Amino acid sequence: MNAQTPSVLARIDADLNQSLERLFALLRIPSISTDPAFKAECASAAAWLKADLAALGFEATVRPTPGHPMVVAHQKAASEGPHVLFYGHYDVQPVDPLELWSAPPFEPALREDETGSRIITGRGSSDDKGQLMTFIEACRAWKAVTGALPIKVSILLEGEEESGSPSLKPFLDANRDELTADVALICDTGMWDRDTPAITTMLRGLVGEEVEITCASRDLHSGFYGGAARNPIHVLSAIVAGLHDADGRVTLPGFYDGVPELPAEVQEQWRNLPFEESAFLGEVGLADPAGERGRSVLEQVWSRPTCEANGITGGYTGEGFKTVIASKASSKISFRLVGQQDPDKIRAAFRAYVRSKVPADCHVTFKEHGGSPAISLPVDGEWLGRARQALGAEFGRDAALIGCGGSIPIAGDFKRMLAMDSLMIGFGLSDDRIHSPNEKYDLASFHHGIRSWARIIGAFATSRG
Amino acid sequence: MNAQTPSVLARIDADLNQSLERLFALLRIPSISTDPAFKAECASAAAWLKADLAALGFEATVRPTPGHPMVVAHQKAASEGPHVLFYGHYDVQPVDPLELWSAPPFEPALREDETGSRIITGRGSSDDKGQLMTFIEACRAWKAVTGALPIKVSILLEGEEESGSPSLKPFLDANRDELTADVALICDTGMWDRDTPAITTMLRGLVGEEVEITCASRDLHSGFYGGAARNPIHVLSAIVAGLHDADGRVTLPGFYDGVPELPAEVQEQWRNLPFEESAFLGEVGLADPAGERGRSVLEQVWSRPTCEANGITGGYTGEGFKTVIASKASSKISFRLVGQQDPDKIRAAFRAYVRSKVPADCHVTFKEHGGSPAISLPVDGEWLGRARQALGAEFGRDAALIGCGGSIPIAGDFKRMLAMDSLMIGFGLSDDRIHSPNEKYDLASFHHGIRSWARIIGAFATSRG
Repeated sequence: MNAQTPSVLARIDADLNQSLERLFALLRIPSISTDPAFKAECASAAAWLKADLAALGFEATVRPTPGHPMVVAHQKAASEGPHVLFYGHYDVQPVDPLELWSAPPFEPALREDETGSRIITGRGSSDDKGQLMTFIEACRAWKAVTGALPIKVSILLEGEEESGSPSLKPFLDANRDELTADVALICDTGMWDRDTPAITTMLRGLVGEEVEITCASRDLHSGFYGGAARNPIHVLSAIVAGLHDADGRVTLPGFYDGVPELPAEVQEQWRNLPFEESAFLGEVGLADPAGERGRSVLEQVWSRPTCEANGITGGYTGEGFKTVIASKASSKISFRLVGQQDPDKIRAAFRAYVRSKVPADCHVTFKEHGGSPAISLPVDGEWLGRARQALGAEFGRDAALIGCGGSIPIAGDFKRMLAMDSLMIGFGLSDDRIHSPNEKYDLASFHHGIRSWARIIGAFATSRG
Repeated sequence: MNAQTPSVLARIDADLNQSLERLFALLRIPSISTDPAFKAECASAAAWLKADLAALGFEATVRPTPGHPMVVAHQKAASEGPHVLFYGHYDVQPVDPLELWSAPPFEPALREDETGSRIITGRGSSDDKGQLMTFIEACRAWKAVTGALPIKVSILLEGEEESGSPSLKPFLDANRDELTADVALICDTGMWDRDTPAITTMLRGLVGEEVEITCASRDLHSGFYGGAARNPIHVLSAIVAGLHDADGRVTLPGFYDGVPELPAEVQEQWRNLPFEESAFLGEVGLADPAGERGRSVLEQVWSRPTCEANGITGGYTGEGFKTVIASKASSKISFRLVGQQDPDKIRAAFRAYVRSKVPADCHVTFKEHGGSPAISLPVDGEWLGRARQALGAEFGRDAALIGCGGSIPIAGDFKRMLAMDSLMIGFGLSDDRIHSPNEKYDLASFHHGIRSWARIIGAFATSRG
């Protein structure tokens, strides 16, 4: 362990309440990136982070993009050392349905849950404001104790992660030299469980599509037209229903091209993980795996591609009843990709399939919502080894090397565009309800997270070899 | 023609602007029955009608029900004569999507449309406030010219027609003697076309159902759960898609029990109507009939049963994208019935079908939204003959005897509960956009409608035989 790390950890423990206050201030800003109504709030969150990083001695800037701005900050090391680029995102998911929140989503609080755990509540508490602040607080503790950082740290905080990161690649491309470091640290993933830290080395890719079917030129009375006029809800339902076969496989031609079978040794490792399918599903009120027949649940969520309708709407959806045949119906549909699946080919196959199902006198429009391939990171590098050791010291047990069903395309972008490996280390838990009402982050996640990054920073500073 | 009818018609022509002002006052009240938020406005519409009828010399009352109130009014004839019960409804459909209205729905106006026709715009202008006021204005003209009505008139105005009429049958049952007349006059239907009046003698029945599928106990992140967790949008889409087969027939077992084939002579009469399938569909931007293969469009909309999804919703439907697997998805589905189809049996078959498609670890709830069988009225009665003659005199061409795809269950209730025949005469046009944005009623419909009722009242007063 780095000689100064123990003092830094002590400082973190002493400063935890102040760390929480700072996180709460950031959580109070409703920086919902996907809804244009919250543009100013996204800018406020970026400005808040810039100010906080500047106060910590970073050269911090807010950098405009065609969408929401990036925050970029740099701080040199006390002496010669490695250079890391930390990535997080300050934007959050929308909060609807608002009525399911037991407290207002942008009024964070520290509460005790039904099991007695202390939790930080509010939108973004876990994804990703709580996570990104673990790293910033670790830097703060190092500065407070030693007056400097022991390694060179750059920080990149994005404001469009929840809306497909449209500005990210152009920004990386335009700022290659500034952003390239020895290794990237990405804090947007979870732990294996409450007691076991994890480093994520496999991530699924994502293709997002929105499809709108228009039949008649206006809404029709179902009494006068019902039976003769095409109903776009029927057309759309058939499209959604036809995306899977009876075995839970996606029906698009060529969909499974580039999907690898899991190596036997990885299958073996996953089988030995303390994981109960019935508990995983039971925690959310389900019992039967819904995915591809013959695959384990971990395979279904980590290593197999999927197709999900994330939203559907058409016709009258208010109180009571309205005998209308809608003019339009629409659905948001996403695909999770693995292996070498090509996002562009899958988008094209989806659109061809939809077009083949739309009657000749109706029409369809598509809207693209992001696309990224899956990524797989090396599991035997020097940085990963040091980080794993630091995590093991913090938690008293080995960090698991895991897959993740979510998509964090930036790790792939860092590799392809900046030739930089990433370490994905995060402290979220599966019951954090990210993207759902009543999102939370365990106080223990926040505290261990800060301490873990402090240890990792110290471990990276130690001379190599 | 009744000797006094010409003076009454002249009075109607002279009073048309005042008639319009009164209609506008009623149209300004947003009496949306299906949305609990508009309860007070429904009560206001009832109170307005009661006051107007009382001013006309009716014994008028507002009668509470468990839902929205009924307006009931009676006025004796000058001398011994027949007794008619007029029925209309003062409630209107919801107005969403509001952004598609070119003027606020509850600010009625007289405009010229693109063809130069003068139209009354606003929600309820055609369905049914404009229609019900044609009868009240005809009574007003008779009173103004002769000081009395030539027949005994009772009026029943309902406030729940657009939300399944839950209070109607109990109300008829509790007030049998008061409401039973020699014949009922129902003004909630349309003309054959702009120049040809019509009496509707066949109406489809209706079964309304709302189905909600719940899978997980909360919304899930599609990255972490996608592939393993059941998606209620997929379940619901398969249910909706499975309701029709490739020939456009409804798949529920027993659905076509009690559906009669159209008698050859009616088929023949319908074939001879000046009706172009391509124009009927083309007017709303469609080309191909979507219903049962091998049936004409008129059969599809008048004499065949249907199933339509009137609304569907689930997951994220706002701006942008959210990679969520929803906990719930729901759909409003209605069936139009013909012949002897039994609403209760069809509701039961639908629920059994849905339950058979819901996975074991998910669950479904149903909400009933009304049910009524189809009705077919006699075409050879004395009242129908007189009314047809009066309509012919007003329009200068014979009234067509037609079917209608909509459901007006009260005609069946009058027959079954009060042993009273109905005449369904209305002046709506197929382009009135009832239940849709920009509802309108032609000024000519309103004017001819008032004159037609004045003629019918006069024709009924003439001694029989």
